[in-house]
Amino acid sequence: MTKQAVTDEYPVSEWTEIEKALQAAVAASEHTRGWPGDRFANFLDKYADCIEERTDQLVDMAHKETALPSSPRLQDVELPRTTGQLRQAATSARTASWTMPTIDTKADIRSIYGPIGPVAVFGPNNFPFAFNSIAGGDFAAAIAAGNPVIAKGHSSHPGTTRLFAEAAFHATQKTDMPPAMVQLIYRTNHEDGCRLVSHPLIGATGYTGARGTGLVLKESADKAGKPIYLELSSINPVFILPGALDERLNQVADEFTTSCLMGTGQFCTKPGLVILQAGKNARRFVETAKQRFDESPVGTLLNESVQSHFTQSIDTLTREGAVVVVGGNAGKGNGYCYENTLLEVDGDTFVSKSEILQTEAFGNGSLFVLAKDADQMLEIAELLEGNLTGCVYSDTNGNDDALYDRIVPTLRQRVGRLLNDRMPTGVAVSAAMNHGGPFPATGHPAFTAVGIPTSIHRFTSLQCYDNVRPHRLPPLLRDKSPDDNTWRLIDGQWTRSGVTTE
Amino acid sequence: MTKQAVTDEYPVSEWTEIEKALQAAVAASEHTRGWPGDRFANFLDKYADCIEERTDQLVDMAHKETALPSSPRLQDVELPRTTGQLRQAATSARTASWTMPTIDTKADIRSIYGPIGPVAVFGPNNFPFAFNSIAGGDFAAAIAAGNPVIAKGHSSHPGTTRLFAEAAFHATQKTDMPPAMVQLIYRTNHEDGCRLVSHPLIGATGYTGARGTGLVLKESADKAGKPIYLELSSINPVFILPGALDERLNQVADEFTTSCLMGTGQFCTKPGLVILQAGKNARRFVETAKQRFDESPVGTLLNESVQSHFTQSIDTLTREGAVVVVGGNAGKGNGYCYENTLLEVDGDTFVSKSEILQTEAFGNGSLFVLAKDADQMLEIAELLEGNLTGCVYSDTNGNDDALYDRIVPTLRQRVGRLLNDRMPTGVAVSAAMNHGGPFPATGHPAFTAVGIPTSIHRFTSLQCYDNVRPHRLPPLLRDKSPDDNTWRLIDGQWTRSGVTTE
Repeated sequence: MTKQAVTDEYPVSEWTEIEKALQAAVAASEHTRGWPGDRFANFLDKYADCIEERTDQLVDMAHKETALPSSPRLQDVELPRTTGQLRQAATSARTASWTMPTIDTKADIRSIYGPIGPVAVFGPNNFPFAFNSIAGGDFAAAIAAGNPVIAKGHSSHPGTTRLFAEAAFHATQKTDMPPAMVQLIYRTNHEDGCRLVSHPLIGATGYTGARGTGLVLKESADKAGKPIYLELSSINPVFILPGALDERLNQVADEFTTSCLMGTGQFCTKPGLVILQAGKNARRFVETAKQRFDESPVGTLLNESVQSHFTQSIDTLTREGAVVVVGGNAGKGNGYCYENTLLEVDGDTFVSKSEILQTEAFGNGSLFVLAKDADQMLEIAELLEGNLTGCVYSDTNGNDDALYDRIVPTLRQRVGRLLNDRMPTGVAVSAAMNHGGPFPATGHPAFTAVGIPTSIHRFTSLQCYDNVRPHRLPPLLRDKSPDDNTWRLIDGQWTRSGVTTE
Repeated sequence: MTKQAVTDEYPVSEWTEIEKALQAAVAASEHTRGWPGDRFANFLDKYADCIEERTDQLVDMAHKETALPSSPRLQDVELPRTTGQLRQAATSARTASWTMPTIDTKADIRSIYGPIGPVAVFGPNNFPFAFNSIAGGDFAAAIAAGNPVIAKGHSSHPGTTRLFAEAAFHATQKTDMPPAMVQLIYRTNHEDGCRLVSHPLIGATGYTGARGTGLVLKESADKAGKPIYLELSSINPVFILPGALDERLNQVADEFTTSCLMGTGQFCTKPGLVILQAGKNARRFVETAKQRFDESPVGTLLNESVQSHFTQSIDTLTREGAVVVVGGNAGKGNGYCYENTLLEVDGDTFVSKSEILQTEAFGNGSLFVLAKDADQMLEIAELLEGNLTGCVYSDTNGNDDALYDRIVPTLRQRVGRLLNDRMPTGVAVSAAMNHGGPFPATGHPAFTAVGIPTSIHRFTSLQCYDNVRPHRLPPLLRDKSPDDNTWRLIDGQWTRSGVTTE
């Protein structure tokens, strides 16, 4: 907010320390192997409590470090979301249905998903709580699966991360977890990051952040055959069909403005590309949005680096043919900031330079594409890279249905989450959520980073038991169900009962 | 069998042809998008019928090309397994429970697994039917998910593959499938293989075969962010605990011999490493197995390349300190062949050179490790690479239980399928099967190549619908269940009923 440097100093983690952390994590992994989900659930619940006890400290520190508003954002939205995630993960760990115990009674083959081993988590800059490497979604999913976590603290909120680490340490002590279940490392160089994600002792990695660094880590992990889950860039295309503009232009412009400027546009699901069919209404929509952007306060960006990257991206887009509708310069707010910015480009230009014009601009701005006709809207859909979300606004009386039916099959394949009449920001923590999508939005289109228990599956291995003597089986694979709450797939049917002996 | 070259000639597929195949596959993918599972199921069932109609031709051709026995192996075991897999895949496609429709009624978010797009399949040399790229497990799984397949025919059974392709073509015509749902390419160079698996139009790849080629393809696919599932080498360690030898030495030696020499040892799950505790019984076991190997007929290997690789591997193992118990030379059988071979090495040597002594010897041979004590058995378990299977024989009265409990937690983490008192060959096609395991056995420890419907998940993407209008949802995500057989996860509970409206 003040552009002032944080006064505390934080260490740079050397390789020798990282390796020690890995060895401690392996020991924790061995120590907790076979523990019932309850044990991990107790820790997650306790951790959520410990976080709530530190609410004021956490909110103050995160506000200071990120310039995000203390209220409602940090205190009333992001913190409850974070503790809510931890508690949902606890419930999943306790119920254990996520392990999908599968029993083939005829062949006496049984399988279950279990922990994969120590998980490294690299969190992003934009959610100091909900995606924090030591408290966020990846963390919760990895622990729920029974894996120790080595969290790499993000340099833009080191103090917040330390407070979480202290709360986590306290929670491990209160719940008899080995302290190495949760470890924190600070800034690492690329080389050490690569060594960590490809190390023989690591189980898997979760990374959320910039595409460049993510791809460097991915290359190392892939070479070593170590799973890595990435959440990289996404521009979240929004198609606004002509009938929707006819019907409710102002409402759509309001929704777009709120979504795009929320958190100063620093959301992975910010609507960064809006596709309209050129014409009188599209022009009115652009003018309306322009006015809204102009009237809206300019938020503060997370740090200098975000401001400079945003500036570069806007420059790239304008250099390639986009023109500024409103904004386009740094300033107009407090601290690191940039004017609320809208760019516009015609469909022909977008089609001819579709790759570079899909450059992500992480911040309070968006690009409008004015397609010359419906065919070109479809062509634009075909040129889209993989994204987390894709959105279609259409009129409510069916006038847009034919165009919807043309565009959506193409859009569907390019996005993880398809929305109707709703902007993509606001990622509900739901079992049905997919906060994922085709590369380069993520590294694999079948996994989600948000949504419990689905997100847990990223950090598991499939463990099969063939002819293993009954008393040696994990309890969840024995004939008799150890818990009436756990769903198991027995001979092709989901049930919460035991194996029926005929 | 005769070392004679197959007389027919088969093409080399040039890149221009592969690219055409890809484009046709994309068109097929678009054409079939949204089809109910029934359509794919009808094709799979019909294809199984068409294969059975060609049984004699297929068995004759495969026998000629691979030297595998016509009966029982090809005709009575592998062919029924192949058609059985296709029909199981059909049942899964029809029931659609594999899509795991997940509905969060409160948030109105719904998700489902759907096709990932065209799948390239590279099959291995050792199962001309059950793992054939155009008829085997990967094929069945990819089609069941609704994906077109581009199969790369293996050069060691091109005629068999062509017969399958003809049967598949016939089945597409009979069931109104676009013919490009199933396409066959022949030999490609590494460069074109890499272009295929990393192409923007490919969805994913399934590969079963040698580690070297697999890793080359993996590197290309990974770089492009394209999922690739690999089944590579595995030596399938078998721990025979002292009590088991006390109790039933001859029986275990028989089971080992049968399993190791089955198919002339050319199974991915052949027991290639046997760990014993040195002593009088272990010596007797080695002698008994030696006698069994000596008495057993020497089978024919698939081709010259298998013979020369097997020779090289045995040479590597003996050069590094293993000594020949029996066999150790080419010959003694018909066609390409090598004596039934047992090697032996002491535990200290194995521990000091554990990486090179885990070299896979693909053929009718195995390596015995004589550990000096129980501690060294555990140390050996700790040094194991990722494997498809791991097996423990123990006595039935509990005398080995303490040692079992020490070794298994370590072994469990290193293998996909853990067995008791049963050799690892014989991979049942079961929903609970895991024919997978940690790298380098496969590329990801949470996926299986065998076992329907689990294997289908490799070829899917997660498709989420947020606030999408009811009539636009895929039928399986609508409130009312379209099919009483499909399990859906509604608000955390598995059910075959519709959404309950309160």
